Amino acid sequence: MQGDPEPLGEFDVIDRYFASGRPGAPGAERRTDVILGIGDDAALLRCLESSDLVAAVDTLVAGRHFPEGSEPRSIGHRSLAVNLSDLAAMGATPAWATLALTLPSAEGRWLEGFSTGFMQLAAVHGVELVGGDTTAGPLTISVQILGQVDRGSALRRSGAQPGDILAVTGTLGDAGAGLALVTGRAIAEDGVAAAQLIERFEYPTPRVQFGSEARRIASAAMDLSDGLAGDLPKFARASGLAAHVDVERLPLSAALRSFTTVAQGREWALAAGDDYELLMAVPAQRFDELAAVAGRLNLTFTAIGELRRGMGVTWALEGLPFAAPARGYEHFR
Amino acid sequence: MQGDPEPLGEFDVIDRYFASGRPGAPGAERRTDVILGIGDDAALLRCLESSDLVAAVDTLVAGRHFPEGSEPRSIGHRSLAVNLSDLAAMGATPAWATLALTLPSAEGRWLEGFSTGFMQLAAVHGVELVGGDTTAGPLTISVQILGQVDRGSALRRSGAQPGDILAVTGTLGDAGAGLALVTGRAIAEDGVAAAQLIERFEYPTPRVQFGSEARRIASAAMDLSDGLAGDLPKFARASGLAAHVDVERLPLSAALRSFTTVAQGREWALAAGDDYELLMAVPAQRFDELAAVAGRLNLTFTAIGELRRGMGVTWALEGLPFAAPARGYEHFR
Repeated sequence: MQGDPEPLGEFDVIDRYFASGRPGAPGAERRTDVILGIGDDAALLRCLESSDLVAAVDTLVAGRHFPEGSEPRSIGHRSLAVNLSDLAAMGATPAWATLALTLPSAEGRWLEGFSTGFMQLAAVHGVELVGGDTTAGPLTISVQILGQVDRGSALRRSGAQPGDILAVTGTLGDAGAGLALVTGRAIAEDGVAAAQLIERFEYPTPRVQFGSEARRIASAAMDLSDGLAGDLPKFARASGLAAHVDVERLPLSAALRSFTTVAQGREWALAAGDDYELLMAVPAQRFDELAAVAGRLNLTFTAIGELRRGMGVTWALEGLPFAAPARGYEHFR
Repeated sequence: MQGDPEPLGEFDVIDRYFASGRPGAPGAERRTDVILGIGDDAALLRCLESSDLVAAVDTLVAGRHFPEGSEPRSIGHRSLAVNLSDLAAMGATPAWATLALTLPSAEGRWLEGFSTGFMQLAAVHGVELVGGDTTAGPLTISVQILGQVDRGSALRRSGAQPGDILAVTGTLGDAGAGLALVTGRAIAEDGVAAAQLIERFEYPTPRVQFGSEARRIASAAMDLSDGLAGDLPKFARASGLAAHVDVERLPLSAALRSFTTVAQGREWALAAGDDYELLMAVPAQRFDELAAVAGRLNLTFTAIGELRRGMGVTWALEGLPFAAPARGYEHFR
């Protein structure tokens, strides 16, 4: 606990840092649908009979998804947040998670920070960690999240209709700016704005509640992890449609606008990724209804374009064709 | 496909190598309880109403769980097998898996081999891969397996009673010998035996069917991943009991006995791990019944000792105290 490089067995690591129920632990409350949690060969869980089970997996690798030397609390938070965001995009309610943690050494201070970030976010969403595997090796974190959604009601990427409004939650580009600040690729004069942007990179907020409430209104959804320019083509293709975006409508935060030019802000919004906002297709006559839902959650919900018959994505700025970055973040390129 | 270091996007990798339903793919049959598989933000699955959901996660890291340069088909097989083995220990029937694959580059020949090993074993057990995440980074494979078991009927590590017979499936130590051969730490004169031992390391057989059938007979179970000397203390502790083993009863295969001394064979059986056999506690009056179940599956099932009141593990060889290796394989030691 004092930062000494203390050797720990696999089971000690999970027990000491992640077990729900350890005194004073965040996320200490146990779910009643966990029949058997961490400690056996597998966990035993009870699904709701009226629900579909929803499963997603996402991995964070040091130096790729976060800078080497990042705050361990941020890494813990993000490793769960990116998975919660996948469930949010389905409109699902998260329930259980498993964690596969590969790390170079079991260093107490790091584990304390990581587990705090992970378990605090888990507690916010009522998620119980039900399985864990720790391994010595290069820092890699895989989380699998399980959730539930009323049978047949999940949002999908497909399902958009021609004429649907294309809209996003929150603001875009903040995380890209935050990462640029963290890595020293950008310097901020305004410390408050910089702190806000870094916070958006280090502690993204998965839009779980909004996703759940949007289920019976939106026609399609996905989460923005790789930047709009990378994600939107996939989204449009899933419904067999074309998408059009008016770039001037991209929601940029006050912090981002105070920190950089609008052009640079848009660049981050389109290509940087890591925002974990939700992209949705919404029937035009129901857009106001869904925007009101967002308002109740203190979340902005901004129309940025529309879905059309055809295929591909077109971008316009003030009515003129706009050359968006060719693709967002993708591995192996 | 020709071994060229072909750049591939994340979605291409999953689609090309792992999607059930690609023509001629092993595991091409889709499960009817998969409502939505790979390709969206998350998978949608339908649980059986009369069942508990069973979830486990295990990670393989290059150079730790398998030698650098191992056959990719073996790595694919093992990454799923170790997880299936966890479900076997619960008596559960596997259903769905997710794969988090971190690899240095998307090299076609490697991916072809890995996915073949993974998907062939998945097909044997009727498992559908429903989620995948590929990332560039040091070779690390995390698989999360989901399965089902009749409500309330899962085997656990706890539940053993004093007087229960301690027994194991199959033979122990083969995988340890196989690994020693693969890494050149041991040399075999008998090529046939060596090949059998290496096969046992590279392609372990999870005892899924036996685990399922043992559910209503055995009182406790766990899978042997870290070697009996490392795993048995955890097993005994889970039931609050002591365990005693007569070391001369440890089942050693003909291949292992032809290859090395009995003493070395026992050392591997106790300390080497990777066998993925099942360790069970069985009420004495039902041992023959369970052994008959094993017989029907062409599996040996060998009594090696018993559970007793008290705590800790005692080892004897021909009635004399025996010094077992202090612990099996464990990380961060």
